[in-house]
Amino acid sequence: MIAKTPSPPYFAVIFTSLRTEIEENYQEMATWMVQLAEEQEGYLGHESAREEIGITVSYWKDLESIRKWKTHSDHLLAQKQGKEKWYSAYKTRIAFVEKDYGFEK
Amino acid sequence: MIAKTPSPPYFAVIFTSLRTEIEENYQEMATWMVQLAEEQEGYLGHESAREEIGITVSYWKDLESIRKWKTHSDHLLAQKQGKEKWYSAYKTRIAFVEKDYGFEK
Repeated sequence: MIAKTPSPPYFAVIFTSLRTEIEENYQEMATWMVQLAEEQEGYLGHESAREEIGITVSYWKDLESIRKWKTHSDHLLAQKQGKEKWYSAYKTRIAFVEKDYGFEK
Repeated sequence: MIAKTPSPPYFAVIFTSLRTEIEENYQEMATWMVQLAEEQEGYLGHESAREEIGITVSYWKDLESIRKWKTHSDHLLAQKQGKEKWYSAYKTRIAFVEKDYGFEK
């Protein structure tokens, strides 16, 4: 689903990743991280798709809520396992959403 | 591939879309738009994946280059056909990338 974010301004975390072939516990952790993110203060929504690369964009009210989520203990464990097992490379970009517009049939 | 963007700051255009079932000319136009975007002044790279939703993030030097690309005549035609045929909904978000960090094995 396209995330139903409020009117800008808000923040986006663009997480782009390449997976290894290791499946161990990956889906369970990904599902758990989405559930946990949704409970966090300042979480506004997320969008995700994977083909050759994976792109997950999560939306946040402010930088403080992003910082808290980044350093959440369960999320830190997921990041550690991500580097060890599931990802061969990733890039995280923190961005300030100034403007949005859309279209719906 | 994860886009090899320069150090921030730069801009991101996050384009999230839902497709219709109409395939007519879609792949050709998508390929052509990527080629054309790559030739534009201020283009820094892009990332794309589609599952339930499609996410394409393109990266740009400044807002002026985004504005020029948005109003490029061939791109305007693609946008028009996109609304008429290929997309049932989309959202475009213009964002200022303040910070990035990554990991590579």
